[in-house]
Amino acid sequence: MSALLEQLIEALRVLPGVGPKSAQRMAYHVLERDRDGGRRLAETLAAAVERIGHCARCRDFSETEVCATCASAARDAYLLCAVESPADRLAIEQATGYRGLYFVLQGRLSPLDGIGPRELGLDRLAARLAEGEVQELIIATNPTVEGEATAHYLAQLARQHKVRPSRLAHGVPLGGELEYVDRGTLSHAFGSRSEMP
Amino acid sequence: MSALLEQLIEALRVLPGVGPKSAQRMAYHVLERDRDGGRRLAETLAAAVERIGHCARCRDFSETEVCATCASAARDAYLLCAVESPADRLAIEQATGYRGLYFVLQGRLSPLDGIGPRELGLDRLAARLAEGEVQELIIATNPTVEGEATAHYLAQLARQHKVRPSRLAHGVPLGGELEYVDRGTLSHAFGSRSEMP
Repeated sequence: MSALLEQLIEALRVLPGVGPKSAQRMAYHVLERDRDGGRRLAETLAAAVERIGHCARCRDFSETEVCATCASAARDAYLLCAVESPADRLAIEQATGYRGLYFVLQGRLSPLDGIGPRELGLDRLAARLAEGEVQELIIATNPTVEGEATAHYLAQLARQHKVRPSRLAHGVPLGGELEYVDRGTLSHAFGSRSEMP
Repeated sequence: MSALLEQLIEALRVLPGVGPKSAQRMAYHVLERDRDGGRRLAETLAAAVERIGHCARCRDFSETEVCATCASAARDAYLLCAVESPADRLAIEQATGYRGLYFVLQGRLSPLDGIGPRELGLDRLAARLAEGEVQELIIATNPTVEGEATAHYLAQLARQHKVRPSRLAHGVPLGGELEYVDRGTLSHAFGSRSEMP
């Protein structure tokens, strides 16, 4: 096989979920059927890796100093939603009608991996809360052990700055069947039951 | 979302089997964790799309005028194996101890799609068979309707040039269970049974 083709197959494996077989399929597909698309991908990827940095206010990916959401006058500046990753931010943006601002931690507290408040930019978040504009901090970290620990830390931080912390509701997913919901979720949902109107 | 990030997600979709969700995951992964890998992929892809062409002898992908296999003195020039695609060639190379040469059709006869003998480079194959060095043409097209039609055409071409055509054996796959083998294969395997030694 051509050495360059082998290098291409190897290079494609940086993409998540791409093993040797699918990398080979991708390389052949691009070379056989879509060289223009391949050229476009190469250019866009090079530009993205070079030019996309982090927004100075929310730490989400951005090509500009401050991202479009943070710069928008149409968003409610008194609501701030903290998420672990840009993908979580996007999921919330697409699923809900939320019109407030975000803060992307780019991770979660994990002392064993050397990820502390500093790595999550919590000094910047504290400064933001101290500005006095934010009234509610919606904490949307993942419901994992580390995500919960991060949530508690964030809640404390919010209270220190007289900001109301809130957390996404946990419970049985809509359309889920009780029989197949995991034990922890079911137990939580049972304990947090609410009176019907 | 950043416009460049959106373009990257869109560009990643030229890869086969990559939908909007996995393209998004790939883009985030590269930007968050592996910018170096992303840069390398961009460069290799650009180089591959530009520089990888087809070998003048076997029509497989090659950076050079004639590929390494065709140029090698260690391969048996009296055996030629015709395959539909570079991926088929690679599969045979990896699975068998075949030491002959290849001819990659880059397709199969399909008159309705405008793919005739010319598109498959059969004029070049005929010229090669006419050289007199090849003694056996191993026809390894896929066992599909179009692949079989192509095989018949190739066999005729071989006979015209006094070259012996052969075809890969069809039958029950090794380790397969009769119960789950498709009807056509089983019927063929039954008809082509061979005496046990």
